[in-house]
Amino acid sequence: MPTETLLTIVDVNKLDCDDFVSIFGNVIEHCSLCAAAVWQHRPFRDVYHIHKLVGDFLDNLPDDGQQGVLRLHPDLVGKVAGALTVESQNEQKAAGIDSLTRDEKEAMQERNTKYRNKFGFPFVICARKNKKDAILEGLKSRLENDIDEEVSNGVEQVKQIALLRLLGIMG
Amino acid sequence: MPTETLLTIVDVNKLDCDDFVSIFGNVIEHCSLCAAAVWQHRPFRDVYHIHKLVGDFLDNLPDDGQQGVLRLHPDLVGKVAGALTVESQNEQKAAGIDSLTRDEKEAMQERNTKYRNKFGFPFVICARKNKKDAILEGLKSRLENDIDEEVSNGVEQVKQIALLRLLGIMG
Repeated sequence: MPTETLLTIVDVNKLDCDDFVSIFGNVIEHCSLCAAAVWQHRPFRDVYHIHKLVGDFLDNLPDDGQQGVLRLHPDLVGKVAGALTVESQNEQKAAGIDSLTRDEKEAMQERNTKYRNKFGFPFVICARKNKKDAILEGLKSRLENDIDEEVSNGVEQVKQIALLRLLGIMG
Repeated sequence: MPTETLLTIVDVNKLDCDDFVSIFGNVIEHCSLCAAAVWQHRPFRDVYHIHKLVGDFLDNLPDDGQQGVLRLHPDLVGKVAGALTVESQNEQKAAGIDSLTRDEKEAMQERNTKYRNKFGFPFVICARKNKKDAILEGLKSRLENDIDEEVSNGVEQVKQIALLRLLGIMG
């Protein structure tokens, strides 16, 4: 959950596991297990140390766990905003997804559905680093990949999303 | 989430991932990633097939992930009932934890705290299969173990809890 004021590393290193999970539990979307695992490695040096541990957690998951992480993400279009986590809502807004034209929305939905049908998980992209045109283009080109490439691409995007979410908590 | 009527394997095999996660997301306490990972292996043969996959998910986690799973569990005493998941509330009630005497409650809290301080995760036991006396005794003896033994014991208890939760969903 995003906090009102940014936490320092000193604050973070004082958190017990329950508080750490309640603050960092959505650094990976809907995946509080990651926060509960990472907490074990404190004291943390800085936000980038935590980010490295989040990345290690992802890299050490078996294939079904990595695909599971991707499946815990929402479709980029489709879900009503109320059903999204606050983090996802803000990220989609930053990418301009809330202001798609009808044609753009239809194109995105169509490619999204194809992507999900092909791979069994939704298209995951760091919306804060990609505007809507780049997302539409990314969907088109990534649809051509095989599943191993897309698990790997998806996990890399989750890491980028995680860093921005961490920087939103710790500054 | 427990459902009103028990699902058949045919029902379960029809579920999309979002619905599967919303129904099976707490088979391991607060660990929706497990359900999102397991969904990948459908069609399932029966409830025991799903349980085997849940066990595989746990066994394939690295050490910090396994300890993270344990840390997502509540203390057996201490949390107010309203902060517990419905599943945990029912399980603790079945074990008689809601009717501890004051002395029993104090003994359990003291051992619980020692356990958490020693291992960095809470004491996890399948409350439906252990009445309060067995739990108090288990806490005492398991406190003597080393951390590897307790990660392993905790994970085995999580598997037992998961089977009973699965049978509460699928019959």
